[in-house]
This record gives sequence, structure tokens and C-alpha cells, in this order.
Amino acid sequence: MKLTSNLARLSLNQITTNNWNIRQAVDGCVQAGIPSIGLWRNKVAETGLEESARIVRDAGLQVSSLLRGGWFPAATAAERQARIDDNRRAIEEAATLQTNVLVLVCGPAPDRDIQAGRGMVEDAIAELLPFARQHGISLGIEPMHPMYAADRSVIVSLDEANRLVEKFAVDHLGVVIDVFHVWWDAMIYEKIAQAKGHILGFHVCDWLVPLPDVLLGRGMMGDGVIEIKRLRTAVDEAGYTGPIEVEIFNQSIWDAPGDAVIAQLCERYLEHV
Amino acid sequence: MKLTSNLARLSLNQITTNNWNIRQAVDGCVQAGIPSIGLWRNKVAETGLEESARIVRDAGLQVSSLLRGGWFPAATAAERQARIDDNRRAIEEAATLQTNVLVLVCGPAPDRDIQAGRGMVEDAIAELLPFARQHGISLGIEPMHPMYAADRSVIVSLDEANRLVEKFAVDHLGVVIDVFHVWWDAMIYEKIAQAKGHILGFHVCDWLVPLPDVLLGRGMMGDGVIEIKRLRTAVDEAGYTGPIEVEIFNQSIWDAPGDAVIAQLCERYLEHV
Repeated sequence: MKLTSNLARLSLNQITTNNWNIRQAVDGCVQAGIPSIGLWRNKVAETGLEESARIVRDAGLQVSSLLRGGWFPAATAAERQARIDDNRRAIEEAATLQTNVLVLVCGPAPDRDIQAGRGMVEDAIAELLPFARQHGISLGIEPMHPMYAADRSVIVSLDEANRLVEKFAVDHLGVVIDVFHVWWDAMIYEKIAQAKGHILGFHVCDWLVPLPDVLLGRGMMGDGVIEIKRLRTAVDEAGYTGPIEVEIFNQSIWDAPGDAVIAQLCERYLEHV
Repeated sequence: MKLTSNLARLSLNQITTNNWNIRQAVDGCVQAGIPSIGLWRNKVAETGLEESARIVRDAGLQVSSLLRGGWFPAATAAERQARIDDNRRAIEEAATLQTNVLVLVCGPAPDRDIQAGRGMVEDAIAELLPFARQHGISLGIEPMHPMYAADRSVIVSLDEANRLVEKFAVDHLGVVIDVFHVWWDAMIYEKIAQAKGHILGFHVCDWLVPLPDVLLGRGMMGDGVIEIKRLRTAVDEAGYTGPIEVEIFNQSIWDAPGDAVIAQLCERYLEHV
């Protein structure tokens, strides 16, 4: 495995090469000298949990995170419980895959009451935390961009995620910061500094202008308007030393050959992150 | 003119009937008993400024606002000055149209430095304010949804708009609150309360799920997930007693017959706002 020291913190979030399975993504990382990978549960299920763990371990890769838990709010108590149970399984999977972090996309409200949805997220995290800690897994709340407030997460600012973490004030709970979701925030540098000590992950991509698509229009670093280096510096200064995942939801990148995507993201990472 | 007291605060933001010219929009309001209209500069230019003013005045309508000023940040000092000059013309037009409010969509940054873009907005407002006050026109900063941070406005939260207003601490400067742009904000009710005394306008529409289009996918009140009544109550409690503009950017609503759109928005306004 070729390990370029400048790539030491780089991780491939495997959604970026969404047409690849676990083995292909792991091979792509090894070939390129990328030392870590962020795994998705649907891909792990495809290959099988034990087999996925073995492939990654044999390749000598670190698993920077498992994506994703969350999706907590629901209309009925039974459905909310089912989602918590699914998150318990995700925590067990994370432990098997030898990662430390389960990324939470907290989910939308079941109706118009977004504040109530936020309460459901808090309740679910309270219930999950002991189980997560017992398994040595940290729950990383990833605030989403506000344009996803209605269909992906009621937690839509780093401030809000920080407040939630501070409310519990325990270890094994923190935030995952993705530049795409937070770059617009006028208070972002203050909020990153306030996240000191509980940053569990850092994701990069770019914001294209115009935005090609709400979900699948994220860009390769350098192709958009996000001040990625400045945000990365702030996250570094807040004491985060862990992996930096390149996570790009983009149909045309997904349709491109994986090796070319990997080559480009390494280059762009070195230049823009 | 049929004036239903329950419609007393309703205003048609004329973008909602974008295929109509000024006369058609004014006639539509009169027919439906809508007492106010929010005018767009491009429509005013089409019909002519004096003629537009005459049509609205003869119909006995109030002009709730003129849209839109702003678009301040630019790469060069000369271009920034040209934009300020254009805003001076907008202020003069607002005075001629006998409205009190020029709505500001502040504009995107000319490059990746969004903080610098925010500084340009502040500088431009500082330069414009004396001219606006002299003409009796208030400048209403409308925070945009964060998904427009890269191409429409660097001011993307009510908190940020409030801070800007408080920094100047003068009359004739305030905020315009549009539910579409702010509904996702976990701190929105605190921020509306903090806007007390400087709320210059209130806009309604709805957030559809899934979002059909970043710009032209806004919904009719009641068709989406925004708690409009709750937000309206908060705005009322913050002391705002002015017009409530229905402003809907939506291609299929634009393509529908204007009278039908007006009839529906009156009904939805009474039910959902």
C-alpha cells in the first residue's frame, strides 16, 4: 500500500464511488494510498457484515465511520422504537467494522411540528447513548443543510447540534461537520470553535453554482464556492485530528469510472483541503 | 372594491401571478378584495413608473413593498457603486409608488469569501441609508434561505439580518421575514421576538416535500410543511401589524390562470395564515 503522508488524513466516503461495492472501494483506496474509508450500511449489507469487515481489515484500511444511523422522528411510539432498534443494529455493525463513529442523519419530522421532531431526536439519542458507549461507538450528529429540514434532518445547523451535545455532556456523543451543510452560516467559525472536544468527523465536497440538484448536485472540491481550507483550518484549530472524508452525492461523479474519481479527489484534496 | 375584513392584511406579491402585468395584477386584487400589492421593479418598468403608480392609486390599493433592491457585493468598487446607484433609483421608484418599504435581497459574494461579501452589504447599506430616510423609504433586509447563499444573498438567517439592523440602530432599516426562508431555524421564535420593532414585512408561501425546484418550487400555503400560523402568530406578537404578502415562485402556479390563483390564495390565506 502506497501511503503518501499528505493523504494521511484522507478518507473515501464510499458514497462518492457509489457504483462500487465494498471490495472495489477498498481496492480503489489501496491503489491510491488512501488510508481510510467511510462505509455505508447498504453497501455493507450487500457484501455481508463479516465479509466487509474482513476485506477492510485485510487491506489495512481504517474505517473512519459508518453511515448512517439516525432517522429518529416518526408518527408513532412503535415506529420510533423500531428506528431506535435499527440504530442499535447499526452500532453493533460499527463495532464489528472496527470504526469508532456512527454518523447520525437525524431524520425529518413526521408532520409540520419540527420542534416536536427535534424532541424525538433528543429522546432517541438519550435512549441509544448507553448502548453506544457500551460498544465503544461514538454517535456523531451531522447537521444537515437547512434545505433538507423537511425530508432528511430536523437538525440543520452546527449550533443546534452543539447544543444537543452539550445538553447530554457525556463522552461518545459529538458532531460531524460537513462543509456542504454548514458553509453558509455567518457564525460558523464561532460554532466550530465551540465544538472543540466533540468533533467526531469532517466531510468535504463543494457547493456548485448554480446548484444542479438538491440531493445529487454536490461538487468536487475546488469546483464550487466553499472556503474549504478555511473551514478545515478552523476544524483543525478546534483540535480535530481525525480522518477527513470526501463525501460527494453527485450523479455524474457516480457515473464516472471510479479510478478516475479517486485520482481526481486525491489531487483536489491536496490542493483544496 | 369588495373588502373582506379578514383579508385586510393580505397583499399580493405580484411575482405570484408572474404572467400578469401591473394592470392585470391590480385588477385581480380589486376583484378579490385584496387591499395591497407588492410590486416588482421589472413589472413597473414594463408598464412605466408613473403609469404604474397611477393604476395602483386609482384602484385604491396600498403598495406593501417594492421588490427588490440589494444585490450589493461585486468584484470591483466601480461595480459596487453602480449597484448602489441602482438602489438609489429603486428608492426613488418606491417613493413614487407610495410604498414605505424597499425589500433588499442582498446578493451573493463575488468570490469564495462570503464574509467579505457580508462586509460589502453592510457598507452599501451604510451608504444608502441617508438617501432612503430622506425619501421616507425603509430598507427591509430579507434573509434568504441558506440554499441561496451562493447565488442570491449572503444574508441567510434572521439572526444575521437582526444583527445587521442592530448594528446601525436607526429607523428606516429593518427585516422582511419570509416563512420559506426561515422556517427551518431552531432559534426562529427567539429571533422573531428579537426583531420586535424592526419587522418591515412578512411573506408567506409553503415548503413542498420533495422540493420540486430550488428557485421555482415554492408552494401554496397549506401544501407543504411550514407551520405558517405559528410563525404568523410570533410575528404578530413581535408587534408587526402590516401587510402579509403571498409571494410564490412556482412555475406551475405562474402557468395557471391568474384569477384561479388569486381565488385559491385568498382561501388558503384564510385557512392557513
